Amino acid sequence: MLQDQTILRIPGPSPIPPSVQRAMNQTMIGHRGKETSQMLKNIAPGLKRVFGTEQEVAIIAGSGTAGLETAVVNVVKPGEEVLVVVTGAFGDRFTKICQAYNIKTHVLDVEWGKALNPEEVKAFLVEHPEVKVVFSTYCETSTGVLNPIDLLAKTVREVSEALIVVDGVSCVGGVETRMDEWGIDVMVTGSQKAFMLPAGLTFVAASERAWTIIEENEQPRFYLNLKKYRDNLLKDTTPFTPALSLLFGLEQVLNLIEAEGLEKVYARHELLKKMTRAAFKAIDIPLLTTDEDASPTVTAVQPEDFDAEEFRKILKQEFAISIAGGQQHLTGKIFRIGHMGYCSPADVLQIISAVEVALKKIGKDIELGKATAAAQLVYLNEGENK
Amino acid sequence: MLQDQTILRIPGPSPIPPSVQRAMNQTMIGHRGKETSQMLKNIAPGLKRVFGTEQEVAIIAGSGTAGLETAVVNVVKPGEEVLVVVTGAFGDRFTKICQAYNIKTHVLDVEWGKALNPEEVKAFLVEHPEVKVVFSTYCETSTGVLNPIDLLAKTVREVSEALIVVDGVSCVGGVETRMDEWGIDVMVTGSQKAFMLPAGLTFVAASERAWTIIEENEQPRFYLNLKKYRDNLLKDTTPFTPALSLLFGLEQVLNLIEAEGLEKVYARHELLKKMTRAAFKAIDIPLLTTDEDASPTVTAVQPEDFDAEEFRKILKQEFAISIAGGQQHLTGKIFRIGHMGYCSPADVLQIISAVEVALKKIGKDIELGKATAAAQLVYLNEGENK
Repeated sequence: MLQDQTILRIPGPSPIPPSVQRAMNQTMIGHRGKETSQMLKNIAPGLKRVFGTEQEVAIIAGSGTAGLETAVVNVVKPGEEVLVVVTGAFGDRFTKICQAYNIKTHVLDVEWGKALNPEEVKAFLVEHPEVKVVFSTYCETSTGVLNPIDLLAKTVREVSEALIVVDGVSCVGGVETRMDEWGIDVMVTGSQKAFMLPAGLTFVAASERAWTIIEENEQPRFYLNLKKYRDNLLKDTTPFTPALSLLFGLEQVLNLIEAEGLEKVYARHELLKKMTRAAFKAIDIPLLTTDEDASPTVTAVQPEDFDAEEFRKILKQEFAISIAGGQQHLTGKIFRIGHMGYCSPADVLQIISAVEVALKKIGKDIELGKATAAAQLVYLNEGENK
Repeated sequence: MLQDQTILRIPGPSPIPPSVQRAMNQTMIGHRGKETSQMLKNIAPGLKRVFGTEQEVAIIAGSGTAGLETAVVNVVKPGEEVLVVVTGAFGDRFTKICQAYNIKTHVLDVEWGKALNPEEVKAFLVEHPEVKVVFSTYCETSTGVLNPIDLLAKTVREVSEALIVVDGVSCVGGVETRMDEWGIDVMVTGSQKAFMLPAGLTFVAASERAWTIIEENEQPRFYLNLKKYRDNLLKDTTPFTPALSLLFGLEQVLNLIEAEGLEKVYARHELLKKMTRAAFKAIDIPLLTTDEDASPTVTAVQPEDFDAEEFRKILKQEFAISIAGGQQHLTGKIFRIGHMGYCSPADVLQIISAVEVALKKIGKDIELGKATAAAQLVYLNEGENK
C-alpha cells in the first residue's frame, strides 16, 4: 500500500495543520527575551476566548494529567473531602490523583456511555455537605460522552459551595466553553486534541472563587503551583522554561481559530458529529451514546455482530486509517472515531466511505454507499453553506 | 470552514509525503562534498528502475519544460525534420520548442481525449522518410490520455530509424515504464507529479541509439547539454549546482517507492483510475476518454449538463478540494482529477464522496452514495488485499 500515509482519526492526538507544523519548526529563541514575551501577549486573549473566561489561562509544559494534578493540588486543601463524578476512564484519572494525595475521595460512578445527571450529583452533595470540590469531565474521551457541565455547575450551586473542577481535555477548543458564565471554577485542557497541537502543553484556568482558595491553600506544590503561572503570565513570562516550539504552534492555532471564527469552529464540530452518527445509524450499527449525550469531538460505536479490534485492524491495513478502540471494560467492545481539531467534513466523508469498505471486508452485509449518503445528506442540510 | 486545509487533487503538483517533506527540510550541505556524491549514488539505481533503463538518468534543476527542451537540443541536429504527435496541450509544447529552434516541424494532430494511433504515425513516416525524430507524450495531462508509447516505438521501427522521444512528465513513476525494452530513445519526466516532489527537477534518460546522435550533435547548448549531466553522474556529481533540497526529497521518494514495490505502485495507480472512472459511470457523468485510452494518473470528466468551472468552485469552497479545469479549447468543458503519487484509495473515496455532495449543490439529480459505492466496489474487487 501507499507508504507514509497515516490518517489519524483517534480522539487525540489529532492531526497538525501544516501552518502549525511550520510554525513549530521556527528556530529556537531565548525564552526570557522580548520575542517570547510578545508571543505570550499574543496568545493570552485567544486562549481566554476559547475558555470563555476573563481569568488568566496558565500554560504549563506537561500532559493533560499534569493539568488535572494542577487542579487537585491547587484547589484541594489538606484534609478536605472531594467528589469525583466518573463517567469513564478519564474521570477515573481524577480519583487516582486525589488518592495519591491521600484526599478523602468520594466517587459517583455513572454508567460508561451515559452523561452524568446533575440532580444525582446534587443529591449526593446534600448527603455529603463536607465535600469541597466536585471533579468532573466535560468530554469523556473513553466513551464519547459530553457531560452537561453548565447544568452541573448550576445545580451544584443550589445546594453547595463546592468548587467545580472540569477536565476539558478532549473537547475545549472544539465545543462551546463558557467558563465564567457557567460558573466553572477550574477548567483544564491539553494541546493534542481540539487544540491541533502535539501533546506537551496543558492549559488551566481558575475562577475568582477558586483563586481565593488557591491563594490560601497550604498544600505543598512547586512546578504545578498555579499562582506562579498566573503571576508570571501577568508579566508576560513563565515561571519555568516554556515548551517553546509548542508555543510557536499555539500562537498559530489561535490564528487559525480566529480566522475561522470560534462559533464556526463549534458549528463544524457539531456537523462532524452529526455526519458521523447519521452514517452509522443508516446502516444500523449501534452507537454507544444517545444523540443528547454525544460529544462533537469523538464518536463511540458499539458493534453487535463483529469484533471492534478486528475492524480497526482492517481499517488500518487497507487505508492507513487509525481509529481508537475501547478502554478498560469496553476494550474490544467499541471503537472510537475522533473528529476534532484539524478535521473537516471531507475528512469525515473519507472515514465513512472507508468504514463501509472495512465493514464489507469483515463480513457485514451492508449496502455500499448508504452510510456515506447519510453523512452527505447531513452535510447538505446542515453544512456551512446550506 | 476549517482553515489551512488544501486537498490537492490536480494533476500536479501532487501532495508531498510527510517523510519527503521532512527530508527536504534537512540542513544544506556542500554540494561538492562526499555526502552529496553518496546521495547521487543512492539515487541512481532507483531512478533507473523507475525509467526501466540501464542508461544514466540525468537530474536537471529545472521544470518539465527544461527537460523537453533538453530532449530537443540534444537529439535534433540542425537542419533536421521532426514529427510531433500532438494529443493535447503538452504535446503542443514540443512543437513550440522545436519551432523556437527553427526546426522543420511536422505536426500530427490527434483529437483531444483520444490516444494516438501508432499506425497513423507509421503512415506519416512512410510519407515523410526524412523525419529524424518523433516526439510524443506518454500521459497527456490535459486530457488524461495514456498514449501507447510501447506500440508507437515498435510500429515506428518497422518503417523508420527516427528516434522516439517521450514526454512522461505526468505519469512516469506511477505507470509502468520500460524504456529499454520498449525502445524509447529519450524519456523525460518531472518531479511534481508521480514523483511526489515539488516542481524543480526534470529527469532525462537517453538510449544508446540516442547517445550516438547526442555525442555528434553540433546544436549549440550549454545548461541543457545532456552529455555533461551523464559524464558528471558517472563521477557521482553534477555539472551545475544541484537543487539540493529536492535531491534530499528524491532520495526519500525512491525509498518510499522501493518500500511499496514498483509493481504495487503501478497497481495502485491502476486501481485509483478504475475507482474514479467507475464512480462517474455509476452516475452517468461522461468521461472524456475511453477505458482503453485512460491514464492511471489523471481522469478527465466532461459534464453535459453543468458547468465544469462552477463545479470546481463548489468543491473548493465546500471542501477545500482542488481539481483542475480544462485547457485551451477544453476550458470550461471538462474537469480533471489527479490521482497520482501520494494518493491512496482512501483519498479517492474522499474525492468521490465530496464530488457527490458538490453535484447535488450544483443541482444535479443524483442518488447520494451511488458513485461512492461504485468506487468502493472496485476497491473490494480489485484492491491489494482482495
